Amino acid sequence: MSTLTEIASLLRRSRRVLALSHVAPDGDAIGSLLGFGWVLAAAWRAAGAAADRVFVPACADPVPAQLRWLPGSHEIVSEAPPGPWDVVVGLDASDAPRLGRVFQPAGYGSAPVVILDHHITNLQFGALNYVDPSAVATAQIVVDLADALAVPIGPEAATCLLTGLVTDTLGFRTANVTPAVLAVAMRLMEAGASLSEVTGRTLNYRPFSVLRLWGLALADVRLEHGVAWAVITHEMRQRVAAPANGDGGLVSQLINAPEAAIAAVFVEKPDGQVEIGFRSRPGYDVSQVALSLGGGGHPQAAGCTIPGPLEDAQRRVLPLLFRLAE
Amino acid sequence: MSTLTEIASLLRRSRRVLALSHVAPDGDAIGSLLGFGWVLAAAWRAAGAAADRVFVPACADPVPAQLRWLPGSHEIVSEAPPGPWDVVVGLDASDAPRLGRVFQPAGYGSAPVVILDHHITNLQFGALNYVDPSAVATAQIVVDLADALAVPIGPEAATCLLTGLVTDTLGFRTANVTPAVLAVAMRLMEAGASLSEVTGRTLNYRPFSVLRLWGLALADVRLEHGVAWAVITHEMRQRVAAPANGDGGLVSQLINAPEAAIAAVFVEKPDGQVEIGFRSRPGYDVSQVALSLGGGGHPQAAGCTIPGPLEDAQRRVLPLLFRLAE
Repeated sequence: MSTLTEIASLLRRSRRVLALSHVAPDGDAIGSLLGFGWVLAAAWRAAGAAADRVFVPACADPVPAQLRWLPGSHEIVSEAPPGPWDVVVGLDASDAPRLGRVFQPAGYGSAPVVILDHHITNLQFGALNYVDPSAVATAQIVVDLADALAVPIGPEAATCLLTGLVTDTLGFRTANVTPAVLAVAMRLMEAGASLSEVTGRTLNYRPFSVLRLWGLALADVRLEHGVAWAVITHEMRQRVAAPANGDGGLVSQLINAPEAAIAAVFVEKPDGQVEIGFRSRPGYDVSQVALSLGGGGHPQAAGCTIPGPLEDAQRRVLPLLFRLAE
Repeated sequence: MSTLTEIASLLRRSRRVLALSHVAPDGDAIGSLLGFGWVLAAAWRAAGAAADRVFVPACADPVPAQLRWLPGSHEIVSEAPPGPWDVVVGLDASDAPRLGRVFQPAGYGSAPVVILDHHITNLQFGALNYVDPSAVATAQIVVDLADALAVPIGPEAATCLLTGLVTDTLGFRTANVTPAVLAVAMRLMEAGASLSEVTGRTLNYRPFSVLRLWGLALADVRLEHGVAWAVITHEMRQRVAAPANGDGGLVSQLINAPEAAIAAVFVEKPDGQVEIGFRSRPGYDVSQVALSLGGGGHPQAAGCTIPGPLEDAQRRVLPLLFRLAE
């Protein structure tokens, strides 16, 4: 493990920085990526050296609609330029595949890879790794990095970083939210971020078509052996013209059932693969199930993508969940 | 308007206090009622006078299942004892009918009625009224009252008051949540309240039958003229054996649709009356519609109960909403 002081010192003297976040980006992926860029720019400005510096944020998958309002989001590229780079920073990703095709370490020459992450499953695949599983979001680590860089957090950085904090804690609802986390949120609000705008545009954003999709999925929701689970087929999605990805937060609703120890939603993708989101109550670790299926995540929130068809995926995964929930 | 100092001084020297909260109690009704009791008990103890004092919390309707874990909730009576009382305190209610049958001012003799509330629509129907519409919850006012009483907030009070704060802000998601509100939440956590327990047991509590009820209601959800609306019939509720009241938070989901300026859920009650919950985006004031139908609330969250049958209620109310959303 490296320290944020080492990483800050490396970043301060770098001229060309590429930053990457993970595939299927969520609020913390984009929020920490953009927040990092704003913090780095402030550090460069403080050093009187902003003019000749280059920062490129990249993410293999498109920025989701509800995050496109974040300042700087239109700068995110989906193909990383060739370089050369002085430093490549990977945010919020526990391993190299999670960064997707924008991560090409063979082409980085002597440029060190710096990893900033809060996933306990992080493989520390960089030259410098700062992994803090006590942070509720990678965005919280970027706040600490700003302190290590001794730069104030401006309103743009604050908005991006509060988005990471809010989305990864589902609006301060996860068990890891301490008073110190609320203090970070207060600080970001005082730096110019609007909490109600962040929650309104992310957690409280659910297109009408997604509400209809929930209706279709909940019509056949199951509760078996302590597992609440539902299925979203490609046909359902087409019927209500819902956005192309994910379950729109349905799995987080299923775990609210007090009867459920574990929740899962099986989402059939257009290519026939099946994306599965898992949630669990404390005491039940779904990250292990996700890991065993080639995915990852946190003990209480994880996911994976496995081959279809749907029925095969259910037959393969449900017994694992039933056993875990016992 | 009275000051909290006046109210604190009155309470400190009172020997018999009856406290009332509103019908169809929510997290702030019960949280502020119980939190008030714990704060008052601390004030009496600090005065070395707890032994001969009587505090009775009352609410005309039963405490909802997800609030029965709150410390003191089993002390809440549904019929107020006859008295005599030194003071009667009404919490979180904008007018006398909202307190229901437990409020019997004709029987209070010279005992003053004290009103503590955060609803801007409060009619100030007490002898002493403290109404602070800038407070996000009546629970926040009780925190201020504890300061006026100069007593520390213990873990029981903190748990009850954080519940009021969290439920009335939907988990810090409403537009009125300032850094100061997060500071109050931090203070309550530091006083012994568990934020994850509070959110887990209230906001994130949704019986499996309610998820199924959502499925039935969302199967026929409508979006018309900027109004997202749905219906829960008595028959639907019976079909999934859902709890007897309310929409289980569905209306708060409907307003998440970016296409909707206003959301409404019509709930058919067993007696044929129709309970309607309204939500709106800032700029659209549903409290006026609710008031005109004999209900009340806040600009962005209000409700009323009107005669059925369902179709009549829809015919009467929907045009008002369509006009408001225009």
